[in-house]
Amino acid sequence: MIDDALAHAHKNRGEYLALLQDLLTIPSISTLPERAPDMERAAGWLAEHMRRTGLERVELLPTEGYPVVYGEWLGAGPEAPTLLAYGHYDVQPVDPVEEWETPPFEPSVRGDMLYARGASDDKGQLFAVLSALDAYLKTAGRLPINVKVMAEGEEEISSPHMAEFIRENRERLAAGAILISDGSILGPDQPAIQYGVRGMAYMEVEVRGPATDLHSGTFGGAVDNPFNVLVRVLARLQDVETGRVAIPGFYDRVRPLGDEERALLAEVPTDDETTRRLAGVRALAGELGYSAMERTSVRPTLDIHGFAGGFSGAGKKTVIPARALAKVSMRLVPDQDPEEIARLFTQHVESLMPPTVEYTVRTLGLARPAFIDYQAPAIRAAHRAYELGFGRPPVYMRAGGSLPIVSDLMDVLGAPVVLMGFGLPDDNAHAPNERYHLPTFYRGIETLVHYYGLLAGMGKA
Amino acid sequence: MIDDALAHAHKNRGEYLALLQDLLTIPSISTLPERAPDMERAAGWLAEHMRRTGLERVELLPTEGYPVVYGEWLGAGPEAPTLLAYGHYDVQPVDPVEEWETPPFEPSVRGDMLYARGASDDKGQLFAVLSALDAYLKTAGRLPINVKVMAEGEEEISSPHMAEFIRENRERLAAGAILISDGSILGPDQPAIQYGVRGMAYMEVEVRGPATDLHSGTFGGAVDNPFNVLVRVLARLQDVETGRVAIPGFYDRVRPLGDEERALLAEVPTDDETTRRLAGVRALAGELGYSAMERTSVRPTLDIHGFAGGFSGAGKKTVIPARALAKVSMRLVPDQDPEEIARLFTQHVESLMPPTVEYTVRTLGLARPAFIDYQAPAIRAAHRAYELGFGRPPVYMRAGGSLPIVSDLMDVLGAPVVLMGFGLPDDNAHAPNERYHLPTFYRGIETLVHYYGLLAGMGKA
Repeated sequence: MIDDALAHAHKNRGEYLALLQDLLTIPSISTLPERAPDMERAAGWLAEHMRRTGLERVELLPTEGYPVVYGEWLGAGPEAPTLLAYGHYDVQPVDPVEEWETPPFEPSVRGDMLYARGASDDKGQLFAVLSALDAYLKTAGRLPINVKVMAEGEEEISSPHMAEFIRENRERLAAGAILISDGSILGPDQPAIQYGVRGMAYMEVEVRGPATDLHSGTFGGAVDNPFNVLVRVLARLQDVETGRVAIPGFYDRVRPLGDEERALLAEVPTDDETTRRLAGVRALAGELGYSAMERTSVRPTLDIHGFAGGFSGAGKKTVIPARALAKVSMRLVPDQDPEEIARLFTQHVESLMPPTVEYTVRTLGLARPAFIDYQAPAIRAAHRAYELGFGRPPVYMRAGGSLPIVSDLMDVLGAPVVLMGFGLPDDNAHAPNERYHLPTFYRGIETLVHYYGLLAGMGKA
Repeated sequence: MIDDALAHAHKNRGEYLALLQDLLTIPSISTLPERAPDMERAAGWLAEHMRRTGLERVELLPTEGYPVVYGEWLGAGPEAPTLLAYGHYDVQPVDPVEEWETPPFEPSVRGDMLYARGASDDKGQLFAVLSALDAYLKTAGRLPINVKVMAEGEEEISSPHMAEFIRENRERLAAGAILISDGSILGPDQPAIQYGVRGMAYMEVEVRGPATDLHSGTFGGAVDNPFNVLVRVLARLQDVETGRVAIPGFYDRVRPLGDEERALLAEVPTDDETTRRLAGVRALAGELGYSAMERTSVRPTLDIHGFAGGFSGAGKKTVIPARALAKVSMRLVPDQDPEEIARLFTQHVESLMPPTVEYTVRTLGLARPAFIDYQAPAIRAAHRAYELGFGRPPVYMRAGGSLPIVSDLMDVLGAPVVLMGFGLPDDNAHAPNERYHLPTFYRGIETLVHYYGLLAGMGKA
């Protein structure tokens, strides 16, 4: 059964590519309201494609925003494992569009690369998931396991309705393992499994001083300038000596990096110098006692993103601003609780504010971190599938970014999330000239054919 | 002669106001290159107005930047005193423009107030000087003294070409006293003479980290965020305990406040609570051991004006910026040397920068502080003119703002500068809704009519 599916997947590479190219012509940019008709078109296209693949009960499940495209095949019976596969059909905006070598919604194959917005993130990877299902259904007429597929349309706008959707569709989505193909491996010959994601607390601090902007000649020296205050407060959120976040209680729930996990991460074929070169910085910085890879994945951090207020144009203006605002986010790791961290941040900022100003601390966004047991059977099956598909075992990493869906799915469905990506680090996701490495796309399909088969061998997860 | 001029000034208030409103429609913002045509228009308008007033040899004297509008009337003869009156026709930018109740370049009279950018600083006050000349020339056909008027177009960008202009035009500008009406008195019924100004060093600090903006999920924790660095550095320019500037050597040349001067300043009928209310702050701040008035005039200070780089729009963006920039200025007092202070600032910032980033410290502007002998005859005449115009003797203060022209003029021409302002502290100079109190404008004209007459009685200064 697997061999027939593999042969079919190989023979039909051209057809899968042609279908993906068709989907990529639809500019389904979820953040732009004027693209709503394209979003509908992409959802409809995907539903129709799922039906042709042979999935059943295909429908658009409504949310308060864009619908979830859902389909399933449960013919393996109640004793077989059930896999829920998640992906998304929305894409990032294309600005600056003038930097694209070919138009973002006119897919173009050049050499081994397919160029288009969404080629990698996530239409291409979602297509690997669906094509591997197609390879079974078009040969054996059945799948080795039960499969449910959900594709959302709001991932690029932080999935505002997903947590609620998952809770409300808990029965329908119930599964023993959850597959997400929406990330990168390390290189075309080095697969990787991500067994965690960082969370986030995105805060905004506003300091209000004078009733209106003042002239620093007239009042400078007698009033606390809101920027001077903000800078003093923000500086005290950082411990320069240790490179740590200086908010009391911030590290209380951080799960220490054990020897076993440190050894696991050390197998990742990268080093600080690679990170330094990729970032384009003179020298790295960060928390004492951790490698760059550890600092960006298993350790929390705090970044200031920008300031508003006062004067920042060309030339000089001697203003004491009425209002100064800073945007700050913290990346969080298990078992930090974003709500608690937002509270600790707010309390600490409050404790540092002088009585000369008024201030507001706002929480703009929270995302929970996640840790996935990398010994879980569904992860071990992914390990073996990568070995079979890529000829090399995967390395294990924790993602530095935040995917709120991971903890939402794990917590509600009580199943492990398997982060099996088929993107590459230089796919230009979220940037001009997004592209997909076609040999990795095809290997991805074959890896997933193996994966579905391997899950069947595990029995009900 | 004085009485006729006073009567004329009173009768023609409406006309003077209408002319001033016309000048205020021209957005002569010197710091914005795209306003160059408006700068030319304002200079031309002013020259034409000086000619209509009856000044002679009116011309635009070129500088490397915007021209000086110059006119004179020397008919009083070589034995009469000569007064050089200085003002400026450029204005501050208008951001944030949405906070203006009426558009900044559509002058609007509401009650006793004339609202417009430049209404007080300095078009309105320059107009008081010119209107008082007009009142003599339109009645007696002559002035009681020789008068030279110069209006520059670069005061709001720190007069980069004035020092050279004054040196090169030393003969033409020669005078026994120099009048500058470009400041505030204490209130509509409390005139004030400013016998000093603060200097300034306006700096820009740019920190460069990654080669391009980075995603804080991927790199957060392993690279020094340029904003995090900038905030740490700027916080260390401030000593929170003492309210002092924490740059080594910063206070070395600060002239201590003596008992005589402290007593003179103590006669100023103001107090900290008044300053607090005017500023609209919850509580004052500043250097230990000094009153609010002292802090804003005889003591130096440091203010952060704004930041550029990263993300400061609505919502969330998790960017580690490639570049972060801050604008910072220091107000200086006698005998601090702006060039030395800029150097100390730069050295201190350099000493605080980590090796993880590149940076540039730029000096955007320097202005020398000045101290004026408040016993000089031209100051005593101003004292009497204020008494006659306002019915109350002036108090003596040192200005908190910076007028580089003061030391430039004093040093080159060897004459005292008389800082006779007719603005009010709540004119919103440099802020939205700048305004001019019209009763004070009219009293200003009458006070200057008296002043020109009193100078005549002094003989050649």
